[in-house]
Amino acid sequence: MSSGALPVSGAWRPGDPAGARQFFTFASDHPFAVESGAVLRDVTVAYETWGTLDADASNAILVCHAWTGDSHAAGRAGVGHPAPGWWDEVVGPGKYIDTDRWFVVCPNVLGGCQGSTGPASPHPDDGVPYGSRFPVVTIRDMVRAQARLMGHLGIAQWASVIGGSMGGMQVLEWAITYPKRVRSIVPIATCMQASAQQIAWGVIGRRSVRLDPRWRGGDYYDAQPGDGPAEGLAIARQVAQVTFRSDNAFTELFGRNLTDRGRVGDTFGLWQEFEVERYLQYHGDKLVRRFDANSYLIIGKAMDLHDVGRGRGGLERAMDRITVPNLSIGIDSDMLYPAYQQRHMSELLSEVGVRNEYVEIQSPHGHDAFLIHFDEVGEPIARFLDRVL
Amino acid sequence: MSSGALPVSGAWRPGDPAGARQFFTFASDHPFAVESGAVLRDVTVAYETWGTLDADASNAILVCHAWTGDSHAAGRAGVGHPAPGWWDEVVGPGKYIDTDRWFVVCPNVLGGCQGSTGPASPHPDDGVPYGSRFPVVTIRDMVRAQARLMGHLGIAQWASVIGGSMGGMQVLEWAITYPKRVRSIVPIATCMQASAQQIAWGVIGRRSVRLDPRWRGGDYYDAQPGDGPAEGLAIARQVAQVTFRSDNAFTELFGRNLTDRGRVGDTFGLWQEFEVERYLQYHGDKLVRRFDANSYLIIGKAMDLHDVGRGRGGLERAMDRITVPNLSIGIDSDMLYPAYQQRHMSELLSEVGVRNEYVEIQSPHGHDAFLIHFDEVGEPIARFLDRVL
Repeated sequence: MSSGALPVSGAWRPGDPAGARQFFTFASDHPFAVESGAVLRDVTVAYETWGTLDADASNAILVCHAWTGDSHAAGRAGVGHPAPGWWDEVVGPGKYIDTDRWFVVCPNVLGGCQGSTGPASPHPDDGVPYGSRFPVVTIRDMVRAQARLMGHLGIAQWASVIGGSMGGMQVLEWAITYPKRVRSIVPIATCMQASAQQIAWGVIGRRSVRLDPRWRGGDYYDAQPGDGPAEGLAIARQVAQVTFRSDNAFTELFGRNLTDRGRVGDTFGLWQEFEVERYLQYHGDKLVRRFDANSYLIIGKAMDLHDVGRGRGGLERAMDRITVPNLSIGIDSDMLYPAYQQRHMSELLSEVGVRNEYVEIQSPHGHDAFLIHFDEVGEPIARFLDRVL
Repeated sequence: MSSGALPVSGAWRPGDPAGARQFFTFASDHPFAVESGAVLRDVTVAYETWGTLDADASNAILVCHAWTGDSHAAGRAGVGHPAPGWWDEVVGPGKYIDTDRWFVVCPNVLGGCQGSTGPASPHPDDGVPYGSRFPVVTIRDMVRAQARLMGHLGIAQWASVIGGSMGGMQVLEWAITYPKRVRSIVPIATCMQASAQQIAWGVIGRRSVRLDPRWRGGDYYDAQPGDGPAEGLAIARQVAQVTFRSDNAFTELFGRNLTDRGRVGDTFGLWQEFEVERYLQYHGDKLVRRFDANSYLIIGKAMDLHDVGRGRGGLERAMDRITVPNLSIGIDSDMLYPAYQQRHMSELLSEVGVRNEYVEIQSPHGHDAFLIHFDEVGEPIARFLDRVL
């Protein structure tokens, strides 16, 4: 095992002076076989930590990020991180996940583009980015890569594993794959297996990337900057962005307002513009600037393949393996991971007999509410950690 | 005014011998100014009729089709119509809209590609398809083109105007634009103005067509057959198809089942295939074979621009103009035109003081339920027509 350099240019590098934030990479040079059978010759996991690990390593909490998230769960904006941590109001000293008490670890997922090995990483054979050579990975592969990091950090058991959306998929896989290495779990706005509708949204996004001629089958890394599949990725993100929010939220935010461009001149043009279009354009463009299209495809496919029951005799038998206290959090307006999915999860765990709670956040904001309503999601987590640990 | 030849090759032509179905075209050579200010030198409206018009022309019902619908509301499959009428179980002799009693007219909308003037029609200047020269049209333009047809048919007043989805938008515009030419209305699974989320889905689809290099800015008609923007249009349709159905329906139909292609060989491939993907692919391909991409864009934009309040002092004042009995039908599982939109419409009309009913169909099928649950939608219509006419 050796510490490795960040494979993605432009990402935030270790040694950034900003306060308690740290960005490490852990490179394992043992071959890593992914669930599909393909073998990665080595694997790097980028991660950040907050707080101090106890002498007996009993206060470590793993926070798992969502689709286009990264290791920067908390902390200010800085080099390589144009925005503050995506859960900065939840994780920190004196906050809901209190880093005065807990040692919090947040890794970038396998397949990602923010420091961990992914399609943009150099292939060890030739130093050229993997591109189309990068294998499909699964949520289980992400978790197994995190388990290597865990060993590297000298942690035998997470006090809790916490995450929303795809982060919640990792939470469930942690509790099922490694029941002895987890003391409690908090899956948020997530599911036990991707539904047909979730898969549908996923594949539509992937097809829009594939349609972009600049995707070039996934091998676009020698293109000039800005000459990758920007529009295809932007459209994919826009599909997702609609599912991340809600009808009500969009009506509230945008209604039928036109942009300046839509108001003057060609008000009946085919590309005349409503405010909601500008919003989608903004989110599409923003993602293009910070995210690799191939990582978007690979991680999206991992979510579609997510099924805790695969190879384990089905959903119920897989959930039976969970032996630790659980807090499931749902969001009443979530159209992507509807609350019934978390309620179902919670019901199965009640039948299993583990200590189990379900909290449903009331919010107009849809799926993204766990990244918006920090108090509503943070308070139940803090109470849960207090009670069960 | 003169009868014109069908501008779109491959469409069903007049004179088809199959029973009561008829497919006419009415060509008006008066210039037709659309709402944007552009002027079409002439306009053709394709339409079909069923039943017999009374001597006093008092028994005519207008049925308005949705986005990719056409004039073939009823009747068997035949030349130019690979499928039976889209409302064949609702419209016909002895059926809910009984053509033994009513003379039913269903026109193809302006901007369409099934006989009425649209982007694929020859431009009168040069005989070359309009393509990118075709102006954006609005629901009001569609209705005004239908009003010309109405005059041609010698009908002074529709006994009822009935339609679902975009058809329902036309219904509302009929009642507001021509209050004296309508005796009752039945808007189904539709809205008074497109919401931000509806616009969002629309623009995402249009962008995927635009991303397809074979769209060529809209001027692709000289391409070889099959060399148009098939993939872009298929993706656009797939976005719509998800919104037309429901999470529950997809789970029920497909779950996480894999296709044969997904089950054998590369089960972890990036393009490995779930059944829901094959379903989306099927619907995308099916639309590509029967529909023109530019018509898809133009009609989709018309829906986004739909706002009965535009230029009329807002929603309430526009709805105030409606003076005739109304039956609004909503669908409880509709995620695209949620039932609250039809309830809101119905509430406004109750305040106006017109005779007004609201029926909500219970269905797991989502928006498309009005094209699936023929009895549930047909029965209230039949009762309503009996009561108010």
